[in-house]
Amino acid sequence: MTSNATAESPDITSVEVPTHWYNLAAELSEPIPPHLHPGTKEPVGPEDLAPLFPAGLIAQEVTPEIYIEIPEPVREVYKMWRPSPLIRARRFEQALNTKARIYVKYEGVSPVGSHKTNSAVAQAYYNSVDGVKKLTTETGAGQWGSALAFAGALFDIDVEVWQVRASYESKPYRRHLIETYGGTIHSSPSELTEAGRAILAATPDTTGSLGMAVSEAVEAAVKDPQARYALGSVLNHVVLHQSVIGLEAVEQLALVESGGADLVVGCAGGGSNLAGLAFPFLREKLHGRSDPKVLAAEPSACPSITKGEYRYDHGDVAGLTPLLKMHTLGMDFIPDPIHAGGLRYHGMSPALSHTVELGLVEGVAIEQREAFAAGVLFARTQGIVPAPESTHAIAAAVAQVRDSYAEDVVVIGLSGHGQLDLPAYSEFLAGNV
Amino acid sequence: MTSNATAESPDITSVEVPTHWYNLAAELSEPIPPHLHPGTKEPVGPEDLAPLFPAGLIAQEVTPEIYIEIPEPVREVYKMWRPSPLIRARRFEQALNTKARIYVKYEGVSPVGSHKTNSAVAQAYYNSVDGVKKLTTETGAGQWGSALAFAGALFDIDVEVWQVRASYESKPYRRHLIETYGGTIHSSPSELTEAGRAILAATPDTTGSLGMAVSEAVEAAVKDPQARYALGSVLNHVVLHQSVIGLEAVEQLALVESGGADLVVGCAGGGSNLAGLAFPFLREKLHGRSDPKVLAAEPSACPSITKGEYRYDHGDVAGLTPLLKMHTLGMDFIPDPIHAGGLRYHGMSPALSHTVELGLVEGVAIEQREAFAAGVLFARTQGIVPAPESTHAIAAAVAQVRDSYAEDVVVIGLSGHGQLDLPAYSEFLAGNV
Repeated sequence: MTSNATAESPDITSVEVPTHWYNLAAELSEPIPPHLHPGTKEPVGPEDLAPLFPAGLIAQEVTPEIYIEIPEPVREVYKMWRPSPLIRARRFEQALNTKARIYVKYEGVSPVGSHKTNSAVAQAYYNSVDGVKKLTTETGAGQWGSALAFAGALFDIDVEVWQVRASYESKPYRRHLIETYGGTIHSSPSELTEAGRAILAATPDTTGSLGMAVSEAVEAAVKDPQARYALGSVLNHVVLHQSVIGLEAVEQLALVESGGADLVVGCAGGGSNLAGLAFPFLREKLHGRSDPKVLAAEPSACPSITKGEYRYDHGDVAGLTPLLKMHTLGMDFIPDPIHAGGLRYHGMSPALSHTVELGLVEGVAIEQREAFAAGVLFARTQGIVPAPESTHAIAAAVAQVRDSYAEDVVVIGLSGHGQLDLPAYSEFLAGNV
Repeated sequence: MTSNATAESPDITSVEVPTHWYNLAAELSEPIPPHLHPGTKEPVGPEDLAPLFPAGLIAQEVTPEIYIEIPEPVREVYKMWRPSPLIRARRFEQALNTKARIYVKYEGVSPVGSHKTNSAVAQAYYNSVDGVKKLTTETGAGQWGSALAFAGALFDIDVEVWQVRASYESKPYRRHLIETYGGTIHSSPSELTEAGRAILAATPDTTGSLGMAVSEAVEAAVKDPQARYALGSVLNHVVLHQSVIGLEAVEQLALVESGGADLVVGCAGGGSNLAGLAFPFLREKLHGRSDPKVLAAEPSACPSITKGEYRYDHGDVAGLTPLLKMHTLGMDFIPDPIHAGGLRYHGMSPALSHTVELGLVEGVAIEQREAFAAGVLFARTQGIVPAPESTHAIAAAVAQVRDSYAEDVVVIGLSGHGQLDLPAYSEFLAGNV
């Protein structure tokens, strides 16, 4: 460590916003299994994806390039909040009675309060290049929906969001945020799509799921030639965009820790947050510069890595999306309505699933109460109230380092703040979670 | 401008966290009129203030020093989020069709989302030095209460908050935030104090006011020898702590604008936010380095500068506080329950009032609808949803620069984000504000 490391945030923004995204898959010995057409079961081609995505994103989904230049209009928007801070969490370390040195890569500084903007801005940009007038999408807790609404406002694209009913009803603030950015939002399942109507007819009291909301948003996009669809996680191009998190973190950490990271932990719902943080650290491992353990913290209520199967499955409940090779609990799995709405997804990013299979990433399942307890401890020591999703990563790190004498360097991905999730904290404090 | 100025945030954290606070009053030709004892009407001495404040803060209230060193434990906490960014708001400029160059000093990056932590941390520190176990305080929208709860958690001090009823009922998220940090919170007026019971007896349906909540918190502190009181604005020591905002902004602006600022605008409730931003710019003016116009944006519903009298008045409704020479609407003035709860205060900081009298600062009253319209435009162009308080500053700047060909350099104080105030935006968008 340099002398600078005595500060709380030794390296807050001493690095530049990355000029390129990093594509770990292109460096792996085995490629990610291709997505398959739901009808033919053959690998999907660009023409299959054209009704859903613009050309720039389709190219990124299968690119063999290791580094892909970030378009200047996207990088200019990133500069509104990037580089995000890497914070040494000294007070949190003291509370855990650990010799580990804990760093937090904090994405809550983005305008919407999470990492989701990293991909939303890129997706809105590539859609604007193709002249797309409207984007449809799904959202769980609302982080992704608000990120895309923000990005749409910047690139003059209308954004229509289907939000999982459980979150739509319990988290109205994110709905207000989407509307403040000029977006429109519906509770999913809705009466607006065939998929939604079919689900409502079969299970009128459903809490909804990301898989259902994806079906609705995909259907709405396919039916409108002016519209395309945007996915907030899972796909390779989303994982690619999120690599800015890890690229910055590797560089920031190197300013204060010469040996790199020993442990990298992030929460994993669809997988893009963890992959975005961890893949640049895995680059360091592939090139022999450090040897970090990477942990994917998922909720016990939706344990796709630790309890799911690794096989081809649909990304949505209606079977409209391509088949993806991934860890999955099954396309019709409905997780309990835990507060971490962003982690309620039946599958896991094919890219992240692939690294799990290669032994580069391990999954760990976290109970909700354990996650909130870690979140409250973090808030009371470091000030930042983490998003319920992010508390899973904190809890997983706590389990690794509490009362430890090992001087490990730990990097926790704090994917967002929890200021719009405060009622969930209140319920936890009242003993109702 | 340097070439760097083509970036969105040319200077985001190229400067250090200040080592000293700046005390403009010590540089003025005329001193700030002293606070008077409510009984004797003589200037208050340290012994009069001892039941309310720790020695370190009492000394700062009357210090003749121009620069006061920031204690290292306070500066270390500041480094969790400071320096806060100075953001060039290019998209907002384009939307306003102006040649003005608009910079936003953004305090929403603090853990609680506003500038209030700058003083809360300092106040908790000086109280901890004196062995104080508990702090009582009032809060309007909840920004100050949550900031003090956060600071109390760091310095091991219990925090008890009385929140103005109108905000307590309409903004539950800040209550949850205070509780997440470990603080306790009551709706004011409450049955817990004599002052509260008297108000409830006379006006059971009152919406509450900051003046009432101050009375309750002061009473609770005075009755408990282990406790002291903390005020989130108005007093000289609070204004002093907030000077970190302007000290950073002056230095950050100098990196990209050689001529300094032409216009500095902030919202003013109790006055510490605007004073914190503007006083270091007034230092530049006093020393002949630039000549900025300073605007204090206050709500039309509570126009203490533009419609109040400049005279001695109490800081609270029950007359428990010292008499302060300030612009005031009268200690019993109850403003309409506008969404900008932090601006619903009958008086104005004596330090800021003094600069108004000296012709260094001008007040301007802003209608709530105009403020929200400016806030929505800012959110849709720059991503950040401003606190309702901060939207008043934005609206005041808009009125100055819209469609202007003058290449003025404008600095807007964005005192906090509005993520916990989104229902207010929703009401505005629905036409109900």
